[in-house]
Amino acid sequence: MAAPAPLSPLAPKSYPDLPVIEGVRFASVAAGVRYAGRTDVTMALFDAPAAVAGVFTKSKCPSAPVDWCRAKLKGGLARAVVVNSGNANAFTGHKGLSAVEEIGAGVAKATGASADQVFMASTGVIGEPLEAARITRVLETLAGSARPDGMMDAAKAIMTTDTYPKVATRSVELGGVTVHINGMAKGAGMIAPDMATMLSYVFTDAPVAAPVLQALLSKSVETSFNAITVDSDTSTSDTLMLFATGAAGRRGAPEITDAADPRLAAFAHALDEVLLNLAQQVVRDGEGARHFVEVRVEGAESDRAAKRIGLSIANSPLVKTAVAGEDANWGRVVAAVGKAGEAAERDRLEIFFGDIRVAREGLRDPDYSEAATSAYMKNQDIRITVKLGIGQGAATVWTCDLTKEYVAINGDYRS
Amino acid sequence: MAAPAPLSPLAPKSYPDLPVIEGVRFASVAAGVRYAGRTDVTMALFDAPAAVAGVFTKSKCPSAPVDWCRAKLKGGLARAVVVNSGNANAFTGHKGLSAVEEIGAGVAKATGASADQVFMASTGVIGEPLEAARITRVLETLAGSARPDGMMDAAKAIMTTDTYPKVATRSVELGGVTVHINGMAKGAGMIAPDMATMLSYVFTDAPVAAPVLQALLSKSVETSFNAITVDSDTSTSDTLMLFATGAAGRRGAPEITDAADPRLAAFAHALDEVLLNLAQQVVRDGEGARHFVEVRVEGAESDRAAKRIGLSIANSPLVKTAVAGEDANWGRVVAAVGKAGEAAERDRLEIFFGDIRVAREGLRDPDYSEAATSAYMKNQDIRITVKLGIGQGAATVWTCDLTKEYVAINGDYRS
Repeated sequence: MAAPAPLSPLAPKSYPDLPVIEGVRFASVAAGVRYAGRTDVTMALFDAPAAVAGVFTKSKCPSAPVDWCRAKLKGGLARAVVVNSGNANAFTGHKGLSAVEEIGAGVAKATGASADQVFMASTGVIGEPLEAARITRVLETLAGSARPDGMMDAAKAIMTTDTYPKVATRSVELGGVTVHINGMAKGAGMIAPDMATMLSYVFTDAPVAAPVLQALLSKSVETSFNAITVDSDTSTSDTLMLFATGAAGRRGAPEITDAADPRLAAFAHALDEVLLNLAQQVVRDGEGARHFVEVRVEGAESDRAAKRIGLSIANSPLVKTAVAGEDANWGRVVAAVGKAGEAAERDRLEIFFGDIRVAREGLRDPDYSEAATSAYMKNQDIRITVKLGIGQGAATVWTCDLTKEYVAINGDYRS
Repeated sequence: MAAPAPLSPLAPKSYPDLPVIEGVRFASVAAGVRYAGRTDVTMALFDAPAAVAGVFTKSKCPSAPVDWCRAKLKGGLARAVVVNSGNANAFTGHKGLSAVEEIGAGVAKATGASADQVFMASTGVIGEPLEAARITRVLETLAGSARPDGMMDAAKAIMTTDTYPKVATRSVELGGVTVHINGMAKGAGMIAPDMATMLSYVFTDAPVAAPVLQALLSKSVETSFNAITVDSDTSTSDTLMLFATGAAGRRGAPEITDAADPRLAAFAHALDEVLLNLAQQVVRDGEGARHFVEVRVEGAESDRAAKRIGLSIANSPLVKTAVAGEDANWGRVVAAVGKAGEAAERDRLEIFFGDIRVAREGLRDPDYSEAATSAYMKNQDIRITVKLGIGQGAATVWTCDLTKEYVAINGDYRS
């Protein structure tokens, strides 16, 4: 292992206090899966089966735990989740399959759950066999030590090249009763759109049925985790799961079984905020990142076209290196718009850095000040806006810059 | 401008002697478009109208010269080509249009050509207005000094961030008569597939009609320029043109007017070789490149699927940084196969670095030697082979590694 990277300059200045989510407890231990001297296996244990929803990588070569979770999700109920860092158990063939089965059986035994209500994830190196015993031997300890306030420690245990733990929380009224949503995520590299990023788990005490949770999650992921990119590389292990213990029902929160229930509005909005906050934290911990970049596209043929153009800009190595160099190189933005394959008219295009319009009607804005734009590019957070002027489609995506540190981190990750 | 980058370690050790192509002459001058102390405008002048074919960027925001050439290509004949480096005349609006019209008229006047038989290209910074006078004032000089042996100088005049000029040549029999094909190219960054790369011009004395040239060129580009990538960024200015003076007809070479003519086979093969050689030279001059990478995909559902998977690997920043770090990180190859969106079965996949099989049947090859593979990764030229085992589709693509120097070059290109 390379030495741990220094804390990202884009890291949050403080962490929120996470309220307890009634009905779920957490435990983390140092099991020595790969890393020494740090926790690397975590368990979330539900007092009773919780409603569950999930979104997984669209990779054609998913990890063994992703295959396992997809199969178990059909039951809609979760009693326990176990996550390890250090080894992804991906591309590990029949050994990988045996490992998830051993771990599933071990969790069932240690917690009294049915193996069909056990979920798991592994994150880290691809292609190394995962020694299941390193995990199974700590399961009794985990089950015995799970605490309602253990979520921040869990967020630390699932880190790999992350430089900080990622958590977010919102409290919101549901039918007049306050319910809570706590989320955690990990991820810094191999982050690309069109999936749920590396690993993220969200917990709520709201009594929301599994199909409703799934509908909310599938919608919200499109404008959060599926709208970020660090390096355009989609992982084999991406997992985003949402669990509802329903414990707030005992305090009078109504049971929600219909995704169209109007009482869901505030909850759905709060969930969107939690997912977007976590997704942006992943980008801010992008490997080697020095700048956080919001790309806003307006006036496209459709929202879908706007998102494709936004991601074309956000994935462009030339745009990302220009941001790293604090250079307002809008010509590269034009090139990225042009290569996206969506309708665009050169002579209607407007491009802004922050509030400064640098280009309009197919050429440089005559009022554009290079000095003011250069000063803007020194900000840590950069906003690039493209107005296409041909339709009503809009989208926002987020990325980070591409620095020499990204190359250094990934040139010796395995060694 | 940043200081010129040092010569790529992957540069050719020697350059071929270019035979004279009867019917075309070249001249280059230092016009001060942007660079000081070097040639930056070149002209190819045909003694009589030559048959012409072209392939251009698929960018939705093409440069003004690309728009111009597309329109003129319909006539199928070329008398002159003028190319400048230092300024791309892209995203320059009505000023860009005026500039190409001024240059077109100037070339017509200086050479006696019809403006409809004038082709041009501009390469360099995007979004800066091109001052046409810097080019028009040197056109008489260019027309007056064009020489049959000026092609190597022309290849130098069109360079931007290139660290070496790129030329290739083949001589081949056509109907029992030797004909020649000379090509030149420029390009080092903003190089991506699905287009003709930055700029490339190929000349032959073979008497081949324009529609036949176009058919040959459109086919050959798919396995040469459209099979390379440096950074996945498609340029606004990509132009590949093929000119046939037909002068070899006077030495008895048959006139070819049908793309199915069997006498074309050797010529078509030689053209493929010239284009592939030039395309690979562009990759070897990829910004910051230290390793040249061939990615071979076999056993895919179709050739098209194989190419998409190959490009997914070749464009993966994580694969490219691993090659830069001389790390045989085949897990990242698996991830890149998985994200390509084409059919793949994890448990049939085989992956090779050079001749070393590192993975098979969904897991690490038990016979794989880390030491031997690490030694292989120190080679300048690396071959990655992926066998999918599900069909007959195959493709080969080429790329370079992603190094800190790429980031450095592109972090301050404009400044």
